[in-house]
Amino acid sequence: MSAIRYELLKTEKHTGARRGRLHTPHGVIETPIFMPVGTLATVKTMSPEELKEVGAQIILSNTYHLWLRPGHEIVKEAGGLHKFMNWDRPILTDSGGFQVFSLSDLRKITEEGVHFRNHLNGEKLFLSPEKAIEIENALGADIIMAFDECPPYPADRQYLKDSLERTTRWAKRCKAAHARPDEQALFGIIQGGMDKELRRQSAEELLELDFPGYAVGGLSVGEPKEIMNEVLEYTTPLMPKDKPRYLMGVGSPDDLFEGVIRGIDMFDCVLPTRIARNGTCMTSVGKVVVRNATYAKEFGPIDPNCDCYTCKNYSRAYIRHLIKCDEVFGIRLTSIHNVHFLVKMMENIRQAIDEDRLLEYKHAFYESYGYNM
Amino acid sequence: MSAIRYELLKTEKHTGARRGRLHTPHGVIETPIFMPVGTLATVKTMSPEELKEVGAQIILSNTYHLWLRPGHEIVKEAGGLHKFMNWDRPILTDSGGFQVFSLSDLRKITEEGVHFRNHLNGEKLFLSPEKAIEIENALGADIIMAFDECPPYPADRQYLKDSLERTTRWAKRCKAAHARPDEQALFGIIQGGMDKELRRQSAEELLELDFPGYAVGGLSVGEPKEIMNEVLEYTTPLMPKDKPRYLMGVGSPDDLFEGVIRGIDMFDCVLPTRIARNGTCMTSVGKVVVRNATYAKEFGPIDPNCDCYTCKNYSRAYIRHLIKCDEVFGIRLTSIHNVHFLVKMMENIRQAIDEDRLLEYKHAFYESYGYNM
Ligand SMILES: [Zn+2]
Ligand SMILES: [Zn+2]
Repeated sequence: MSAIRYELLKTEKHTGARRGRLHTPHGVIETPIFMPVGTLATVKTMSPEELKEVGAQIILSNTYHLWLRPGHEIVKEAGGLHKFMNWDRPILTDSGGFQVFSLSDLRKITEEGVHFRNHLNGEKLFLSPEKAIEIENALGADIIMAFDECPPYPADRQYLKDSLERTTRWAKRCKAAHARPDEQALFGIIQGGMDKELRRQSAEELLELDFPGYAVGGLSVGEPKEIMNEVLEYTTPLMPKDKPRYLMGVGSPDDLFEGVIRGIDMFDCVLPTRIARNGTCMTSVGKVVVRNATYAKEFGPIDPNCDCYTCKNYSRAYIRHLIKCDEVFGIRLTSIHNVHFLVKMMENIRQAIDEDRLLEYKHAFYESYGYNM
Repeated sequence: MSAIRYELLKTEKHTGARRGRLHTPHGVIETPIFMPVGTLATVKTMSPEELKEVGAQIILSNTYHLWLRPGHEIVKEAGGLHKFMNWDRPILTDSGGFQVFSLSDLRKITEEGVHFRNHLNGEKLFLSPEKAIEIENALGADIIMAFDECPPYPADRQYLKDSLERTTRWAKRCKAAHARPDEQALFGIIQGGMDKELRRQSAEELLELDFPGYAVGGLSVGEPKEIMNEVLEYTTPLMPKDKPRYLMGVGSPDDLFEGVIRGIDMFDCVLPTRIARNGTCMTSVGKVVVRNATYAKEFGPIDPNCDCYTCKNYSRAYIRHLIKCDEVFGIRLTSIHNVHFLVKMMENIRQAIDEDRLLEYKHAFYESYGYNM
């Protein structure tokens, strides 16, 4: 039996948007959903209680980073990632593939796996489908990702074709290596760059392996947004209707809208916590860079239309002061607000799908937020 | 009418320890008390809710730092420090004197005040009794400190005598400049270095000014602990019995015991949050440097006898991992634990005074904690 079950509740009348419900070992997730990223078993600066307070239903954590520090064996010995980090809701772990290709300069891809150097100390390491799954099984997330190659953009067609075919062979090996299929759902990752035919080939090959869920990988790697949307446009129809669809590494408000409209159910991105660190906030009236001098004497909240902990209790002036002074509590406050903002936006999107008015909601959102994502 | 009222509840049978209750505009403080330090209007990494959860009754904030950033006028415009930082319990502000003497290299002391350079950008500044009180009035803390000179250790007798006499003249000017005596209690600071006669002179001069509370300044500046205790031994009997007594900048467990035994009611120190940043925790069984490799696979709490949020929910292994990775949440967890530790220790001290067994409690504490503070 699969570790998860996806219920398709409805498809929006005017778009490809789907309302769904994903049942996992650690609880039910309403989709479409945004997943905050907790790279090193912590969503930067935030406590699990704060994540719950802002409405986070599932978080993502990074296999590569946890493999290096503290090591998956320690997390396993601690009773798994949920217990280690005190988070009892669902978790998704990536496979480490993306980090190997993005963080490591010296790498060599073979059929067996990837040789590369640790980005922290240069130590030689080797990651393979079997090793990635061993680590993910030790971490124990509800959803785990197959080990894939995320090719660069642009890349030539032959490279993309060879790569996606290897990614399929690796996906098979991931499935074979997966030791806990009843407790952890293994997702396949569709590659193929910006090539329609290759995306089709990748999807077809992976669908044969009957994974409980599928991701679209290899997007948001530097291509123009129109191209990303075009790829989604022809890729999501290739994906099973009765399984969750996950667009990896994407999370700006416009990307969330465009992904949902094309039938994506799950998103993750470091954006809300990353921009929080330099004092940038997403608000109902657009981006506010709260560290700017213009906010020094503004005693209202970051977002007058927000009911998060930050906006209920603190002024722009106070948060600006903290960020200017490198005080961690300032980053806590902007992180809470930003994660709340995206979680709340997805809640509004779900409601808009329920009521078949997603395009109206999108229009209203842009009218107020502007086009500077 | 004074802004505060001190009730002496009892004096311990075997020591000079006092149990008291200090009524302030923002609530009642049980004494003796430890005050966590929130230099820049934030107790590093912690929220006001977390401070309340660990039992903090009053916090200290720094006039000098808030004067520079964000500026006292902004805090005033925000409605005062309580509102600015979302803390509705009592606050004490120092006068900036200590920072002028400890952070600034280029300074010139005149009768009028102190010329020095901003430690951030080298800009020329001038702080006087009138200016310090103007800032403290703008911040609006419940208890504010007179502007004094904190002489170095060692210093020659004539310097100390001249300095304390100037500090007295400055204290008079502070009192005259104080615009909100009904809302903020101004404390005088007894100086005189390690000289018994000079401490007596300083106390006598300041007592004539009838401040609602008194501090012992100029200690914990590099002198041996025995000398600090000796100075306290002869200084506290010079202080009024019916007013609160505050020992500035002191907060290691042994200093708290020795101060309480000699009749001190209030303490502040950055120690618990400062050592938290490198992963050092005070525990019932002594110091634990949780970042050390020895804790990598320890899945129990930092302190098995602690019921703080950190110890109830997280392991040494997890906290070590976070601190090693420079993850802010790790410092949050060690800060919460350390502040809780000192607050709880003072609670135990108060109970021991109530039951006339302070020396027994001190003995039991050292037996378990050891002598490495
Ligand atoms: Zn908010
Ligand atoms: Zn604790």
